[in-house]
Amino acid sequence: MGGGVGSLMTLLGRLVSDTDQASVESIALFVGLLCACIVIGHLLEENRWTNEAINSLFIGLGTGLVILLATKGQSSRIMEFDEELFFIYLLPPIIFNAGFQVKKKQFFRNFMTIMLFGAIGTMISFCVISFGAKALFGTLDIGYLELRDYLAIGAIFSATDSVCTLQVLNQDETPFLYSLVFGEGVVNDATSVVLFNAIQKFDLSSIDSTIALKFLGNFFSLFITSTLLGVSVGLLCAYVIKRLYFGRHSTDREFALMILMAYLSYIIAELFDLSGILTVFFCGIVMAHYTWHNVTAGSRITTKHAFATLSYIAETFIFLYVGMDALDIEKWEFVRKSPGKCVGASALLLGLVLLGRAAFVFPLSFLSNFAKKSKSDKLSFRHQFTIWWAGLMRGAVSMALAYNQFAKSGHTKQPGNAVMITCTITVVLFSTVVFGIFTKHLLRLLLPPSDFNDPTIPSEPSTPPSMTMPLLANEQDPGEDPMGSRNIPRRHSLRMLLTTPTNTVHYYWRKFDDAYMRPVFGGRGFGEQVLG
Amino acid sequence: MGGGVGSLMTLLGRLVSDTDQASVESIALFVGLLCACIVIGHLLEENRWTNEAINSLFIGLGTGLVILLATKGQSSRIMEFDEELFFIYLLPPIIFNAGFQVKKKQFFRNFMTIMLFGAIGTMISFCVISFGAKALFGTLDIGYLELRDYLAIGAIFSATDSVCTLQVLNQDETPFLYSLVFGEGVVNDATSVVLFNAIQKFDLSSIDSTIALKFLGNFFSLFITSTLLGVSVGLLCAYVIKRLYFGRHSTDREFALMILMAYLSYIIAELFDLSGILTVFFCGIVMAHYTWHNVTAGSRITTKHAFATLSYIAETFIFLYVGMDALDIEKWEFVRKSPGKCVGASALLLGLVLLGRAAFVFPLSFLSNFAKKSKSDKLSFRHQFTIWWAGLMRGAVSMALAYNQFAKSGHTKQPGNAVMITCTITVVLFSTVVFGIFTKHLLRLLLPPSDFNDPTIPSEPSTPPSMTMPLLANEQDPGEDPMGSRNIPRRHSLRMLLTTPTNTVHYYWRKFDDAYMRPVFGGRGFGEQVLG
Repeated sequence: MGGGVGSLMTLLGRLVSDTDQASVESIALFVGLLCACIVIGHLLEENRWTNEAINSLFIGLGTGLVILLATKGQSSRIMEFDEELFFIYLLPPIIFNAGFQVKKKQFFRNFMTIMLFGAIGTMISFCVISFGAKALFGTLDIGYLELRDYLAIGAIFSATDSVCTLQVLNQDETPFLYSLVFGEGVVNDATSVVLFNAIQKFDLSSIDSTIALKFLGNFFSLFITSTLLGVSVGLLCAYVIKRLYFGRHSTDREFALMILMAYLSYIIAELFDLSGILTVFFCGIVMAHYTWHNVTAGSRITTKHAFATLSYIAETFIFLYVGMDALDIEKWEFVRKSPGKCVGASALLLGLVLLGRAAFVFPLSFLSNFAKKSKSDKLSFRHQFTIWWAGLMRGAVSMALAYNQFAKSGHTKQPGNAVMITCTITVVLFSTVVFGIFTKHLLRLLLPPSDFNDPTIPSEPSTPPSMTMPLLANEQDPGEDPMGSRNIPRRHSLRMLLTTPTNTVHYYWRKFDDAYMRPVFGGRGFGEQVLG
Repeated sequence: MGGGVGSLMTLLGRLVSDTDQASVESIALFVGLLCACIVIGHLLEENRWTNEAINSLFIGLGTGLVILLATKGQSSRIMEFDEELFFIYLLPPIIFNAGFQVKKKQFFRNFMTIMLFGAIGTMISFCVISFGAKALFGTLDIGYLELRDYLAIGAIFSATDSVCTLQVLNQDETPFLYSLVFGEGVVNDATSVVLFNAIQKFDLSSIDSTIALKFLGNFFSLFITSTLLGVSVGLLCAYVIKRLYFGRHSTDREFALMILMAYLSYIIAELFDLSGILTVFFCGIVMAHYTWHNVTAGSRITTKHAFATLSYIAETFIFLYVGMDALDIEKWEFVRKSPGKCVGASALLLGLVLLGRAAFVFPLSFLSNFAKKSKSDKLSFRHQFTIWWAGLMRGAVSMALAYNQFAKSGHTKQPGNAVMITCTITVVLFSTVVFGIFTKHLLRLLLPPSDFNDPTIPSEPSTPPSMTMPLLANEQDPGEDPMGSRNIPRRHSLRMLLTTPTNTVHYYWRKFDDAYMRPVFGGRGFGEQVLG
């Protein structure tokens, strides 16, 4: 803050004198800016050329600039970009809410495609970026980087920004694309985490063919344990609330238990080195499917809105934060000396990001189409292009990974590391702003209005209705999915499984769910007794 | 955590390796314990001999004990008691929610009595405890304490625990007593803060009569600026939401703006050395009176429950935390050497707390009764006794102040300071558990069932109804207060002002509110246009 407020601060004593004054100051600034972001985001909502992520980013940049000028170039940061803040406090509510509000039918219908894109696709992108960077960075002379660093670059720039995807695509307007791109983003996060983790742990001096297998085994065990953990915590929460009839006593207790158990699932996953993102995502899905139906009507409305609001605040905070952090003067010291190299490296990385994504979206779409019989399920070229484009944004996950790899304990002084940090910031800012701005327009251009709505699912208004009961009807529960019961003939199940595997799995899941799961864990049709 | 988990931890690497592993570990433990507190609190709800504060305290103590045994006496704490955590994160939601849910009519009807108790009463209690401690501690030989320390002791032990009051008294069962004791607690917090602040700032070597005047001036300016700040932020929020018609767009944005602006008011107050507690309390009142009526029905239900839940989680956390912190071995080192002195000092302080509170409750009640004409408004001896008893609990505010005064930077090694910390913990535990347990029984014993409900106000169910619309009707708005319009003759206003000052003020406030405030800031009857 320096300047104005700084001089004011010296005038003021404080009650709790060993509370860090600077932290109170920066909390006040951040909270004030968050309010500004909300109001400005509201005012610019109708504007086609911006979205809330970009607004927050620019408000952050503007504030950084003001501070930079006020302190005469000494500092632009109120706080250092803090991975712990990001991974422990900001990310969980966003991903949990995504799981809680996701249209489960769409998600599970496209499950195989999502997995293909998220796991195999990310690996392909990782390889393209890593080897591309290794091959091309030599020509730029930006300082020495180890093999480990190049692999880290691959992992960092393969991490799609699922938060930004949420902002750009609209679940209600383009449910099919949203579920694909967002679902891919969640799986992609997990993959990047495994890759990054593996890079830091594995002995890279002796690479052989078993490493690849280890990677793969590692990924699948991580994916399965993380998912199971999330599902178990969600089911436990549903069971506890159903058994104890919390609803009879207190809405506040139900809400508190849901929020705490969701967070617990994330923290336990982090503690055991799993993918907290996957865990909390599946915990959200299970809570929406079972727990949510066991609570009072008041709790349903409260949880729906409160989770969305927490997620919204966390998202806004992240973009604000990235914007403010970007102008930190220390990081740009090296760039001042050789601006050309940095621009070159950033452009190169951006090109590799574009290429790396293209290298898996189009081939894998072809593969996915190959497996699908009905024409309406296939991905047209326009869809493929949109998927490619909408996943190009890089965001806070990339920033956090880059800081972790290149900015540890004053490491930034080394030219190679300094360049990588500034490149990451450049790519993040550029991709968020430029790709973000054009995505809305691209969607309108590429997808004819009829494509905007999946024909099988009625469109829903994008703003939640203000009254309460209609709101509850929004919930798309697999249990009353019209597709599931209408389209599937009930016989010849084995042959069916081979021809329309997803629908058949869904049909049997529904039977299992109704017969065994709902009587124990609650859910639509079984929670009513609690509401009484 | 040490032991079991510790050895497990060494087996696990971590993605974000410079995120403090210990902090993830302790977050996981705390969140898990919070869930346990909620479930156990629910199971023991019907039990007369406990309440949620005591449950959490015992769960905290139990966990501390387990850790102590697991680490073989090395440590019982997962984290050090952290004032910043307490004052910056845990206290604001509790006090804001208290303001948001308070029965405004009761509060303002008893405003003068509350001020008398909270301001003058706390000063009296402060003097009794300070001078009592100074006179009697000499005989105990517990180490050297300065005059400043004795004054700090007075401030520390004058701070009523408003959080615990909320747990023990029930707004719906005993609205009159609740508003008095809780309102007093809020003003008392502010007074203690001013006193404590003044003690640390003033030059105590030259005490003269002007000091007392300065104290008084300081208190009133702090009270007025803090209140004004809270009211202004609340009004600003109401105005912004009304003007921009947020409701038309997004429930999440409204909720986010309310929660952020409420927090902003607290943080700004802290930044400018005002009483954040007073500020956020009045901000809550204004938001309930104006802002709440400008938002969508969904937002109303969400804010009502979400604020209550946040407050509930923060309260549970505080008691858990105090319980866990109490078993920290280092603090009890000195006690082991001379247990008698500590028990003596604690008993002495507890006696002074009892005496100090008696020294103002009974005389000031007499004064307050003297000013009131109608017999029903007067405080009976039973009421006075209950007020005295219900305000005896000391809690986290006392702990935080004591740590601030006596435990700075390894200061605890000095015997005098160590004794004061252990005494504070003893008094807090004893008063919360013993006074807490007996308050419910005392209330039933002292107050005949008819007294449980203020005759003028219909009783409300203590659990919020699960449906939404009836819930909205709970709001006790000054605007449709039957008292205000029925009991007051509309003429001879000057004479009226002298005989029934509070009611008259209320009558004019209502006229002013309807004519000028509501058209601008919204509120019942003017928010409807937004709800459409």
